[in-house]
Amino acid sequence: MKYNLMPLAGMAEFSPAEQLLFEEWKEIITGNYRLFGFTPIETPVLERAEILLAKAGGETEKQIYRFKKGESDLAMRFDHTVPLARYVAANQSKLQFPFRRLAIGKVYRGERSQAGRFREFYQADADIIGRRELDLTYDAEIISLIATTIAKLNLGKFIININNRKLVMGFLQALKVMDKDQVLHLLDSSEKISESQLKKELSLLRLDTFEVRQLLKFSRLKGEFTQVLSELANFDLNNTQFNQGLQELTAVHQHLQNLGVDEKLYCLNLSIIRGLDYYTGVVFETKLVDAPGLGSICGGGRYDNLVGGFSQEKMPGVGMSIGITRLFSQALSLGLLKPKRKTCSQVVVLPLSGDLPAALKIVQQLRKVKIASEIYLQPAGIKKQLKYAGDLGVHFALLLGDDEINSGKLSLKNLDTGEQLSLNLAATIDYLQHQTN
Amino acid sequence: MKYNLMPLAGMAEFSPAEQLLFEEWKEIITGNYRLFGFTPIETPVLERAEILLAKAGGETEKQIYRFKKGESDLAMRFDHTVPLARYVAANQSKLQFPFRRLAIGKVYRGERSQAGRFREFYQADADIIGRRELDLTYDAEIISLIATTIAKLNLGKFIININNRKLVMGFLQALKVMDKDQVLHLLDSSEKISESQLKKELSLLRLDTFEVRQLLKFSRLKGEFTQVLSELANFDLNNTQFNQGLQELTAVHQHLQNLGVDEKLYCLNLSIIRGLDYYTGVVFETKLVDAPGLGSICGGGRYDNLVGGFSQEKMPGVGMSIGITRLFSQALSLGLLKPKRKTCSQVVVLPLSGDLPAALKIVQQLRKVKIASEIYLQPAGIKKQLKYAGDLGVHFALLLGDDEINSGKLSLKNLDTGEQLSLNLAATIDYLQHQTN
Repeated sequence: MKYNLMPLAGMAEFSPAEQLLFEEWKEIITGNYRLFGFTPIETPVLERAEILLAKAGGETEKQIYRFKKGESDLAMRFDHTVPLARYVAANQSKLQFPFRRLAIGKVYRGERSQAGRFREFYQADADIIGRRELDLTYDAEIISLIATTIAKLNLGKFIININNRKLVMGFLQALKVMDKDQVLHLLDSSEKISESQLKKELSLLRLDTFEVRQLLKFSRLKGEFTQVLSELANFDLNNTQFNQGLQELTAVHQHLQNLGVDEKLYCLNLSIIRGLDYYTGVVFETKLVDAPGLGSICGGGRYDNLVGGFSQEKMPGVGMSIGITRLFSQALSLGLLKPKRKTCSQVVVLPLSGDLPAALKIVQQLRKVKIASEIYLQPAGIKKQLKYAGDLGVHFALLLGDDEINSGKLSLKNLDTGEQLSLNLAATIDYLQHQTN
Repeated sequence: MKYNLMPLAGMAEFSPAEQLLFEEWKEIITGNYRLFGFTPIETPVLERAEILLAKAGGETEKQIYRFKKGESDLAMRFDHTVPLARYVAANQSKLQFPFRRLAIGKVYRGERSQAGRFREFYQADADIIGRRELDLTYDAEIISLIATTIAKLNLGKFIININNRKLVMGFLQALKVMDKDQVLHLLDSSEKISESQLKKELSLLRLDTFEVRQLLKFSRLKGEFTQVLSELANFDLNNTQFNQGLQELTAVHQHLQNLGVDEKLYCLNLSIIRGLDYYTGVVFETKLVDAPGLGSICGGGRYDNLVGGFSQEKMPGVGMSIGITRLFSQALSLGLLKPKRKTCSQVVVLPLSGDLPAALKIVQQLRKVKIASEIYLQPAGIKKQLKYAGDLGVHFALLLGDDEINSGKLSLKNLDTGEQLSLNLAATIDYLQHQTN
């Protein structure tokens, strides 16, 4: 039988060199989350469908992979936040709050496949959940986590666009806008369409010219915090929500300065809404300055009522998520990443004269001192063995021919430079331990 | 609405302390695989159903999670080996052979839930795939990988039980056994049932008394390689497959000695069959000496025809797999593991006098020098802050009250011993960097 051996559409699969780089990314990201005291918690991929559907909402609900097995109505998670909410509610009495949790794992969205969109993909999340209350300083902590994490990925300049849903909702309230949801939806996409297009779309709703003008003015506000905040004061609105939004943003800005986050790394951008329904306060999206076409590479925000939906208590949370499969794949396509190594081995031992026992003993010594190494065990001539080492993309080959066995000196060949050294085993180990892999 | 907040039956979910230990396990295991030059390759959880069903076989087929989404007939992987076979066949021209790949990730088996059985669980696999040929030394390499990996998990004494399918098949052939599959199935379970029970079951098949006696004698052979190999010679069988099995086992034993694998760590056990159909030669199962009730904690073997089923070429492979979710959970229940830390943080900064800017600057300095640290940002009194630090299970708290701010000396409290030091920031950092977390 002839099989289609390609992965299904929307499923990522990498070459060894790409995968090694992807593993590095996972380590860099979770390493930084851990540095901030976030502790890993893993929830199952499969959940009761009712749990996920409770919080999915319109578009997401259609995308869920849901099926029956025996009596169970199962669904595959579409994010890490809803399972976190369930976990926290279920383990409330055993956890310490504010609870910092990191999650890195695959999530599933069976959406129509298109370039750059995945159906199975990694999200790397960090969230803080409070019991009854959660101070605004935690929102700033999450933003500072984004700034340091994205910086460590070395993807060039980036900017974290911050907004506050309260500010936007208060603004719409003050303007007495009727079709709030449609307006929000338009504002959310306002960076993707032209000003005239946005104006046209807004005019189709129940808004007068003054309201349209105000909304356009509002949604185009973007820049340094102090400046935008002072421009907002000019709107002279007497609305509680709006003012609370302003206060929160002022406080977050202050905390970011205390946390030493460079002001060049973030801005206040009033067009940021975030699609998901559960956000209630501060929201943020991150963009690469030199690759804006990638869209938001890391988003998140404050959700005061999500966990409470599964619990008896109010449990406000704030968190962020990087869709790393998509970001990694796009960074590869754009040439921002250069996969190099194709193997975990630092050195490959080649028993050129076929003396396996001697070669096996050497590889065993190398591994004992934590030098990642493999050995070519297939009976083969010198040429084939050297070709294997060359194709493998390994940095060093340790050649073990008759000369080496008789003299007790090994030949260590640097496959990148062609340089060859003659060293005994101890000196070889010492040399390799001082090389970066 | 009231939700059932527990994970579905058969789905693992850990506490923070348990999860941290589980993460350590994942690192120890993949770290050792990498030391042997195995490179990570991740395939999707979702595959075309036809790919997985092609190699699933009877019992496994019933356990597969399979469903339709739009036009696609999807299934969740039930192991890492079948997806590996597809990956290698699909990328044959781009890979270097022998190809060493590691995989760690969740697999799915919707079996009837029972104690200690999971439906969603981690497997950690290492495999070597050859092109056209794969020398028997690679089988020894995999066994040596098992020995070093299980040793690093610190679960006490263990023993790797080795056998060879060719030996067993040749033996049955020489005995002219008709019902080979049923006999294999009985031998596979022979360690779980009594000798008289086994004898009774064998008598129900088309076997005469001599054959039953020979089979019993054969299947009970177990011990040191050299001894069992010489006992096998006594059977005096003139069967090609049997003799090839003998030769292979002799060679593997020799290679294991060259690789420095302690003879106490493995034995020849003729009752080892392995359930899966695709094994063709050497097979192995690992047991904990002091917890035999756990059954096999790590199995594997040689499969000469699995990858070829998706390819035009013969691509023999050998590999091993640890079912780490089950092993970890059972080791927890048996008290073999003691979860300690409940957080990734080495230190928690407590702004006792409420001076957040000062505290935020300190936590920022700690993170810069890679000291995992968090800060308590909720407005709260001294007592509540200290309680949080205590409950968190963190080793150190850095107290920042008025005295500390005025004097420039921080109070570093060891929460395990109660000891408190007064140090400036540089000395605090130096002290913490010399502690193990």
